[in-house]
Amino acid sequence: MIIDQLDTPLTGTSLKPTPAGVAYTDPEIFIREQAEIFEKMWNAVLRADSLASPGQWRTVTVGREEIIVVRTRKAGIKAYLNVCRHRGMRVCTTAEGRSKTLQCGYHAWTYALEGELVAAPNLTSMPDVDRGEHGLKTVHVREWLGYIWLCVSPAAGSSAPPSFEETVMTEVSTRFGEVQSLENYGIEKLRVGQTRRYEVAANWKLIIENFMECYHCATIHPELTEVIPEFAQGWASQAQDEIHGASFGAQVEGFTVDGSAGVAALPAIAEAQDRKYYAITVRPQVFINTVPDHVIFHRMYPVSAAKTIVECDWLFLPEVVEKQLDVSRSVELFHRVNLQDFEACEQTQPSMSSKAYDDGGALVPSEHHIAEFHQWWAQQIGPFARGR
Amino acid sequence: MIIDQLDTPLTGTSLKPTPAGVAYTDPEIFIREQAEIFEKMWNAVLRADSLASPGQWRTVTVGREEIIVVRTRKAGIKAYLNVCRHRGMRVCTTAEGRSKTLQCGYHAWTYALEGELVAAPNLTSMPDVDRGEHGLKTVHVREWLGYIWLCVSPAAGSSAPPSFEETVMTEVSTRFGEVQSLENYGIEKLRVGQTRRYEVAANWKLIIENFMECYHCATIHPELTEVIPEFAQGWASQAQDEIHGASFGAQVEGFTVDGSAGVAALPAIAEAQDRKYYAITVRPQVFINTVPDHVIFHRMYPVSAAKTIVECDWLFLPEVVEKQLDVSRSVELFHRVNLQDFEACEQTQPSMSSKAYDDGGALVPSEHHIAEFHQWWAQQIGPFARGR
Amino acid sequence: MIIDQLDTPLTGTSLKPTPAGVAYTDPEIFIREQAEIFEKMWNAVLRADSLASPGQWRTVTVGREEIIVVRTRKAGIKAYLNVCRHRGMRVCTTAEGRSKTLQCGYHAWTYALEGELVAAPNLTSMPDVDRGEHGLKTVHVREWLGYIWLCVSPAAGSSAPPSFEETVMTEVSTRFGEVQSLENYGIEKLRVGQTRRYEVAANWKLIIENFMECYHCATIHPELTEVIPEFAQGWASQAQDEIHGASFGAQVEGFTVDGSAGVAALPAIAEAQDRKYYAITVRPQVFINTVPDHVIFHRMYPVSAAKTIVECDWLFLPEVVEKQLDVSRSVELFHRVNLQDFEACEQTQPSMSSKAYDDGGALVPSEHHIAEFHQWWAQQIGPFARGR
Repeated sequence: MIIDQLDTPLTGTSLKPTPAGVAYTDPEIFIREQAEIFEKMWNAVLRADSLASPGQWRTVTVGREEIIVVRTRKAGIKAYLNVCRHRGMRVCTTAEGRSKTLQCGYHAWTYALEGELVAAPNLTSMPDVDRGEHGLKTVHVREWLGYIWLCVSPAAGSSAPPSFEETVMTEVSTRFGEVQSLENYGIEKLRVGQTRRYEVAANWKLIIENFMECYHCATIHPELTEVIPEFAQGWASQAQDEIHGASFGAQVEGFTVDGSAGVAALPAIAEAQDRKYYAITVRPQVFINTVPDHVIFHRMYPVSAAKTIVECDWLFLPEVVEKQLDVSRSVELFHRVNLQDFEACEQTQPSMSSKAYDDGGALVPSEHHIAEFHQWWAQQIGPFARGR
Repeated sequence: MIIDQLDTPLTGTSLKPTPAGVAYTDPEIFIREQAEIFEKMWNAVLRADSLASPGQWRTVTVGREEIIVVRTRKAGIKAYLNVCRHRGMRVCTTAEGRSKTLQCGYHAWTYALEGELVAAPNLTSMPDVDRGEHGLKTVHVREWLGYIWLCVSPAAGSSAPPSFEETVMTEVSTRFGEVQSLENYGIEKLRVGQTRRYEVAANWKLIIENFMECYHCATIHPELTEVIPEFAQGWASQAQDEIHGASFGAQVEGFTVDGSAGVAALPAIAEAQDRKYYAITVRPQVFINTVPDHVIFHRMYPVSAAKTIVECDWLFLPEVVEKQLDVSRSVELFHRVNLQDFEACEQTQPSMSSKAYDDGGALVPSEHHIAEFHQWWAQQIGPFARGR
Repeated sequence: MIIDQLDTPLTGTSLKPTPAGVAYTDPEIFIREQAEIFEKMWNAVLRADSLASPGQWRTVTVGREEIIVVRTRKAGIKAYLNVCRHRGMRVCTTAEGRSKTLQCGYHAWTYALEGELVAAPNLTSMPDVDRGEHGLKTVHVREWLGYIWLCVSPAAGSSAPPSFEETVMTEVSTRFGEVQSLENYGIEKLRVGQTRRYEVAANWKLIIENFMECYHCATIHPELTEVIPEFAQGWASQAQDEIHGASFGAQVEGFTVDGSAGVAALPAIAEAQDRKYYAITVRPQVFINTVPDHVIFHRMYPVSAAKTIVECDWLFLPEVVEKQLDVSRSVELFHRVNLQDFEACEQTQPSMSSKAYDDGGALVPSEHHIAEFHQWWAQQIGPFARGR
């Protein structure tokens, strides 16, 4: 089964266990995941250029929190819990908008785009009310790869946000490696050609596990294995310590649903990156796929133990988007992959509550790297009871 | 911010805290509220004249119980848990009806309108079955202000129903005061001109808090503040120890959606009550608003921590209803107020589960009287954990 | 009230209690019922002739498990938990099908119809993977009365499946007795004339209790009591230790909705079984009714504390089905009985959470045999708290 074109050694000949089924179904474990993983780590939420001008804002979800992300006049992008400090109403009640201040529609408490309380009825007669202290609650913001990343962890103390450099950036650079640098793709300068939103009736971990392995590719991804024939052998781009560039088939012209040519390659990619596909997982909720002419960027938003929202952007060079070049065959390829993957995840979720999965399932050798994700997950969650 | 036309002093210049967000979301706390508040106190449920003739009955909800309210031949209004004493089927399976007895549709156990078991198949061969002991379980009934009030607490012992005089009546008379007596409105003799039912996706306490303050009036109630201009200042009719009559605007002719004249004033109101609006909260589920020519009477029925049914009656003089005078502009005013208030409550409910509300929100001085409601609530509920 | 045509003595003149209401509403008790009753006992799920040829399979539900039932080439009917041993996906993702192997659609793990793992991508390079050990998890199968019965209990140890002979068969033969032998009906050779599926918003125990007594017949089953007049007296076919054959009315020609003649009688029934109706409950989820010319066979599948699926087969002689004789009036009679019963159960379920049912309801003498079911149930479930 050793595949010649892969220079990655097999990591074993036996099976490794997965977490017990209860890890994928228990509402209590899901709450722990929200609190200990999604609400403590950095989450990518929006393309930075989707907030083009000052005062423009959007509401997004991280963990169990709804957050306002707004472009200010002086302070760049800022983010706040979408909760008025007075009696708690949603300050922004639509998905997006543009305004000079953020005003709650209940009692007209009014916040500057930079967060502080600037006006409220009768506020002048309440001298004890500190306007800074009663500003909107801040959420940490970083911009990277053209995305806005948020961390809802408190600003100080033991729950300080993890270092963006040491977590997100290090994870990406370590996985991609020096040579295969992700920077070559210039993701921060790309533009969204298409976005699709999927509502998946499956636990978020099933979606990560699916994304991390290609043992399923031959079975459920006919179009993908046509374009990347080596995937039919079952080894994922991210199966080894360092990322593996999976080669296009000999007759394939581009990463499209029918193997026809895509658009012009991104200008700075290395020669080794030509006609190659790469995939990495940035825990806890981002998947990045790169091909020579575009980048596919997934973000996950867990809703419940058995439901996850996935948003997927297809990113192209600005001129491709501006000239409205036809990218439909590029988009269609991974859209089909998404649908195929999510259907598999949805057909797996119900089994998680079967006694057949009380002790979990099995990872074959080409899936062994998923065990590292499981270990990391177990560390974040702590001990839990296996009972159904 | 002191408003000249208000003779009520400011009660402070600082903020007071509200209960923690969990109080508005936790299913366990909600069960305690049902058991300790709604199922122990008096609840207004029906207009007494909606049961006009003997044998006429309706089913209503108090706390977690469905109750039959029936007009008997000899004993006036009676009320029973809608549960057959045999195998438990709903004795009445529709919202209303009229019958000589209350007969269960499953095994034909038959109860007199006065509650006792009077017939059942083969009952004569069961001499051990005491017909009095197997009557429908009684619910306490009072009539006041033309409404039927129910208390589902047991009849005797430590869980005896609270005194109607010392709770409901004292609360109303204390709030309204001697001079401004509610009796002048003769509510018991009025007739329902219109009833509306609202299903509100918010905790019942958010609805009470909203009703108790007018700090939001300027922001969300344009029609109301046009009719009662002082409400734009933020002080509620019930903000102080004794009720405050809020004056109609100078150009306003009546309490209608456009300020046009309503119908003839109720005959016995005092001169001081003319061109005035009053509002009181009768815990736990009644709001009463009075204006010179009609009375608006709300009743709340909590369904879950995040859902509440509100029914609202507009009450007029019998001749107004009989002659079918046009009261649509009167009804429209508070119907709009209701919709505006309930939308605000629904936009507040989701924030109750945010960590931004872990320690609750804030009451401004013109809302300080709500803190008394919170204290009362906390006494009924007892200690609870704040964790999310 | 003693009915002359019944030779069964009264079993008392007083009331016996039922379980507390919480037994019918508590999700924790429902989980115990699934684990201790439905997942430990034998459940009838499918007509054996619905899997006519090798490779034909159907998926069914027992307790909280989805199960594949398949006809093999050599080993007869086999059943497996519908969970791939690799990563858990449903192996069969539709309700029925026919195939040479059972192949998971995710990673193409492939199982023989007899259950063992026979192929998987790269399996040859995983010498440590024992194909027998990684076969589908087996569910116990028995065929009786033409039905496939399943038990999901483990094969060995303290949780071994109960003896089919000592439980199902003994229960049936004891209830039917030697003389009235069920065997006379030749149920295993009959064919399904019609099947109906009902989704009932009630606890499964309410459905059993309903089926076990006929005290409700006079009230809710006009067509049934027209055909079997003695049911109007309230005594059920199964009220006594030995089953009672309930006689058709004098003018009744057959067990049809209008008493008109049915089809030809089953050839082997005893003379005493002519013009008689019998009913038995085979715990935990089968009801069998026999009349001279057909058999009505119910199976229950509990979904939640307040929801139960019921499937009902009407079984006739093969020639009746093959010749497509008109059996619509036969089917219509018990279909109406089903609808009448299930509506009563649905109107009973809401009362189970009333404080009026905190201590349960009452069984009249003609229902006293239900107490034996309650005792059996309590033994399986163990102690539980009564609080609401």
